Amino acid sequence: MNNRPLILISNDDGYQAKGINRLVDMLRSKADLLVCAPDSARSGFSCAFSATTPLRLIKRHEEPGLQIWSSNGTPTDCVKLALSQLVNGRTPDMVIGGINHGDNASVNTHYSGTMGVTLEGCMKHIPSVAFSLCDYRENADFEPLRPYVQKITDQVLRNGLPNGVCLNVNFPLLNQTADYLGVRVCRMSAGSWNNEITTCHHPRGYDYYWMVGHFQNDEPEAEDTDRWALDHGYVAITPTRIDVTAYDCLNLRFDL
Amino acid sequence: MNNRPLILISNDDGYQAKGINRLVDMLRSKADLLVCAPDSARSGFSCAFSATTPLRLIKRHEEPGLQIWSSNGTPTDCVKLALSQLVNGRTPDMVIGGINHGDNASVNTHYSGTMGVTLEGCMKHIPSVAFSLCDYRENADFEPLRPYVQKITDQVLRNGLPNGVCLNVNFPLLNQTADYLGVRVCRMSAGSWNNEITTCHHPRGYDYYWMVGHFQNDEPEAEDTDRWALDHGYVAITPTRIDVTAYDCLNLRFDL
Repeated sequence: MNNRPLILISNDDGYQAKGINRLVDMLRSKADLLVCAPDSARSGFSCAFSATTPLRLIKRHEEPGLQIWSSNGTPTDCVKLALSQLVNGRTPDMVIGGINHGDNASVNTHYSGTMGVTLEGCMKHIPSVAFSLCDYRENADFEPLRPYVQKITDQVLRNGLPNGVCLNVNFPLLNQTADYLGVRVCRMSAGSWNNEITTCHHPRGYDYYWMVGHFQNDEPEAEDTDRWALDHGYVAITPTRIDVTAYDCLNLRFDL
Repeated sequence: MNNRPLILISNDDGYQAKGINRLVDMLRSKADLLVCAPDSARSGFSCAFSATTPLRLIKRHEEPGLQIWSSNGTPTDCVKLALSQLVNGRTPDMVIGGINHGDNASVNTHYSGTMGVTLEGCMKHIPSVAFSLCDYRENADFEPLRPYVQKITDQVLRNGLPNGVCLNVNFPLLNQTADYLGVRVCRMSAGSWNNEITTCHHPRGYDYYWMVGHFQNDEPEAEDTDRWALDHGYVAITPTRIDVTAYDCLNLRFDL
């Protein structure tokens, strides 16, 4: 009889990314791990799912307490496929997205495939957490995150999370000697992306475009936000809800 | 000098879909219209954007006060591309997603490319509205929506919307003789998708999967929800916010 918890892990950088493999290493001793992740990078895929594409699952690795699968689908597809096809009758005790290579704070939460994983777990009533490191590099150093990832995971396995609420956890990029100053539970910063399009000219004579841009924080002085925490060396934990209703606007009236 | 408002329109069903073309027809007399929509269906694309795909824009139609463009990108890409490349120095007075062929109420808001359009407009501080009809058919009848779409658009053009809040407007499918019972401003229902995966067997010997499923409303008796409104013949207007922070959970503590 297996009494270990089961954690379902996915990401948007693909099953071979360093971040997801470091996460497996950090949690390997704590739980049975089921990894189901895209077969290549799906950054910026949000909660997209594949309405019209036939999906496949390929087993990449298996040993006691650890399975790794890849899919040709989106991060959200991976969670849905795993919960339907791979859990063998068990309900995961937790869903984790990440560890993402790159920042998912502020409005990035809406574009993030890592948050797609986490929201999907949350919508299935499973305590769900996204871990992201503000470092896009393939060889980013995830080791400073280890104690934080382990302790947050322990706590969520032990206490769960409120129904309909998941965690968006972001880690700033540190210089090599420093440790994080601590953890701050914070709200999402207001901000937006600017100059998002770069135009290029194709040798055949037409223009094409790359999506790039830079993020502008609309409230850099607000100390209760995720961006402030990250900019000042703290781990930012943003509790995030499924219910996106603007409750303070339910009094809007329409003349119809 | 052109004093007419400018409305940017996109969708996730593609620029040739009936819903977006009916929307253009409904709003043609009220505003200059700039349509920039995917070149084919992108249902379920959420807020996905194309981080690694070169994007193109193709002009499909132009007449005074109306331009129609298509892109190979996502609904979100279309909004970003249009605001960067096609507005010719003007800021749209409104962004509209739709009219979608299919229901975007409850948790569907998270998967919806129509809501991707609308959230993107809202993140750019433009009053933004999604219109969706609970009828997936290609030849769905959008005509009963006309006065509602026109009046809601008029009102939003006139009064704007609170910053960081957009509208998710869903219309039930009526039988041919009835009209809507009215409009209800409501919250998002709690609910989830079940039995989402259908397994098929490929002639080459492997399994593949289609994403299907059915929606389960977790609170069918709750009269303040979008699903209740739709199930009882009302137009459902759900004010929806960009800020997904779970404010009632900012007191969570982590032992680190």
